[in-house]
Amino acid sequence: MTAELISVGTEILMGNIVNTNAQYLAAQCAGLGLSMYHQTVVGDNEERLAGAVRTAFGRADVVILSGGLGPTEDDLTRETCAKVLEMPLEPDEHTKERIREYFKNSTMGEIPGNNWRQAMVPHGAIVLDNENGTAPGLILEKDGKCAILLPGPPNELIPMFEEKVIPYLQRKQPELLISQMVKICGVGESKVESELLDLIDAQTNPTIATYAKVGEVHLRVTARAANPEEGEKLLRPVVKEIRRRFGTAVYTTREDETLEMAVVRLLKKYELTVTTAESCTGGMLAARIVNVPGASEVFRQGFVTYSNKAKRRLLDVNKSTLKKYGAVSKETVKEMATGGVFASDADACVAVTGIAGPDSEEDKPVGLVYIGCCMKDKVEVEKYQFKGNRQKVREQAVVKGLDLLRRCILESCAK
Amino acid sequence: MTAELISVGTEILMGNIVNTNAQYLAAQCAGLGLSMYHQTVVGDNEERLAGAVRTAFGRADVVILSGGLGPTEDDLTRETCAKVLEMPLEPDEHTKERIREYFKNSTMGEIPGNNWRQAMVPHGAIVLDNENGTAPGLILEKDGKCAILLPGPPNELIPMFEEKVIPYLQRKQPELLISQMVKICGVGESKVESELLDLIDAQTNPTIATYAKVGEVHLRVTARAANPEEGEKLLRPVVKEIRRRFGTAVYTTREDETLEMAVVRLLKKYELTVTTAESCTGGMLAARIVNVPGASEVFRQGFVTYSNKAKRRLLDVNKSTLKKYGAVSKETVKEMATGGVFASDADACVAVTGIAGPDSEEDKPVGLVYIGCCMKDKVEVEKYQFKGNRQKVREQAVVKGLDLLRRCILESCAK
Repeated sequence: MTAELISVGTEILMGNIVNTNAQYLAAQCAGLGLSMYHQTVVGDNEERLAGAVRTAFGRADVVILSGGLGPTEDDLTRETCAKVLEMPLEPDEHTKERIREYFKNSTMGEIPGNNWRQAMVPHGAIVLDNENGTAPGLILEKDGKCAILLPGPPNELIPMFEEKVIPYLQRKQPELLISQMVKICGVGESKVESELLDLIDAQTNPTIATYAKVGEVHLRVTARAANPEEGEKLLRPVVKEIRRRFGTAVYTTREDETLEMAVVRLLKKYELTVTTAESCTGGMLAARIVNVPGASEVFRQGFVTYSNKAKRRLLDVNKSTLKKYGAVSKETVKEMATGGVFASDADACVAVTGIAGPDSEEDKPVGLVYIGCCMKDKVEVEKYQFKGNRQKVREQAVVKGLDLLRRCILESCAK
Repeated sequence: MTAELISVGTEILMGNIVNTNAQYLAAQCAGLGLSMYHQTVVGDNEERLAGAVRTAFGRADVVILSGGLGPTEDDLTRETCAKVLEMPLEPDEHTKERIREYFKNSTMGEIPGNNWRQAMVPHGAIVLDNENGTAPGLILEKDGKCAILLPGPPNELIPMFEEKVIPYLQRKQPELLISQMVKICGVGESKVESELLDLIDAQTNPTIATYAKVGEVHLRVTARAANPEEGEKLLRPVVKEIRRRFGTAVYTTREDETLEMAVVRLLKKYELTVTTAESCTGGMLAARIVNVPGASEVFRQGFVTYSNKAKRRLLDVNKSTLKKYGAVSKETVKEMATGGVFASDADACVAVTGIAGPDSEEDKPVGLVYIGCCMKDKVEVEKYQFKGNRQKVREQAVVKGLDLLRRCILESCAK
């Protein structure tokens, strides 16, 4: 089965945004075993959009459109697809009701008249409820093919694709693709690839695909099989071998588990609480932990100590330490971590201090970051020299902080 | 003049990489005043690539191809374009010499035989020397149109485009596009559009385009003109009228200024410091402020008080307030904000408490968020009911927190 993407939006043609939806959708289609030969971007223009839809529908089985489902005059995807596929628009009571509910539960006031356009649905279309916005997704089936219309904002598109489109496509695709995720932290992508080279070179079924994330590498092991049991049987030995090669660097094999979720799971398992003491990451590490539903069981408070004075006052870092070694030093991060435990009564504290840039400080280079973890009267400190801009340095520091905490828990508890 | 992009690479179709080249090239073309109506991605397949080139050449004046100029069998862009535009390949001595030089100055050793393919140039083509790799860029002119072939790696493509392609295109394009950004916070997208409907309906030059972000709407006003001065003159009255209609909801007209940058700019201007007291946002608000280089001047510390105990201990919130009204209440956020100022000696404190979900708490609905800002002995409190998942609720809360701080500063200082 072949799939094709059409991204709709003048902001993409103008270069105002990076088309991350296309990458997401392409990777998902690849994971589902769909072949993709074309991707297209068109603007908010009916004639050109209609042309793109006709062309794509002529050559692919599944055409996925993203964007242009909003309430404004510019948003033409629904109307244009309805016209090209000859499925006239009609009002959908269910969607109307959902829009009414959406506005009732928000502070956005009156429903603007143009929002009702979003309740017009092509005759016979499958409606995909949008849990994070007002524009429903739509599946238009015709001549054994289908067009899948998705809203443009990634926080609407991604959940809709994962909850509603994947199950739909899996039903259409006769051979099953069963996959298993293996998530690795603390090992670089090229290192992971070279460690797996023999497996990757020899692969036919299952296959291994690698995806690099900030500070992480995700491996998707995918098997083609007639049924789930056969798929599982094909996957098991490969996943076991990967686990053997990477040991505790594998932090999860659960599809939906993020690094912070794995950390919170471990904290809960060993009944530990944690606090954070952040300088250059300025709250990002705490925010990642609080990202996890139910984090309140293990995380009660965090400290953002950006200035030296705050480090002294909130974490009791010694004035002389700051003076002698500087705020970005092994000594300071150590005192931040122990001070955080003391100030919060938590079982552990992760501390981060570094130079995020753009300017270097204390004669130290941009990207230099110290991370400390205090747990059970022991403090582990790691020094990193990250590459990239301010945001990227901080993101990497957060991942390394979470991973250090994870390794400290495993080391002191999982024996 | 119209331009069109063709990105060549199976890795894009598979979703292995984000197509950042397309964004870069699109933004560059927009800046040069070229109109872009289509972008296409095709894989390393001669037939489909030839089809894409033919289609693009049929409808655009400038076709920019990126990728597929490498030395391997997969790399077909040069050969395919030569065939489609009927400009037969011939060896180019100058490029041969450059490849020889490139290898001589590197540690890569012997020149692999297939590298010589890169020295084959379509008859009559303009060769663009590659300062960062072996594949030269090529401009193929035909029938008043042109195809511009660029190497895929961004560190080769970007310098080549800026040094060689921009001057070439500027010679071809007589008219300039000048644009001005207007960023609005606290007004929904459809409200913004309906307020501007008369301007948008009447627009010819300049034009207004709207882009929705989380909690924000960005407007781009674009004029076509013979020179920058004329462009500015066309933009000025439109931007002034937008400012008149939205007042202080316009937080910036600077292209690169984010909401947090605008807030930090105002804090610096009025010599104020700020702290944060966060519950459901768990450090995200502090992290957004620390995002801004130089934030240390105005932000010294922040509190993440996720548990009630932490709210009491760090911010001195009354036990009875928490008991009587709950942690998610007007009363608690008020005490968090005043407590934050007191605990930190900052001039202002933004406090956030809410139910991010997935589960409701204290019999209060998911998405209910109170935001408070204490400044100069006055506390402003706002109540919101946000939609969406945990992450989206928190992102919206952060934007509203930054915006409340901004409005409080303007109200108390800008008079």
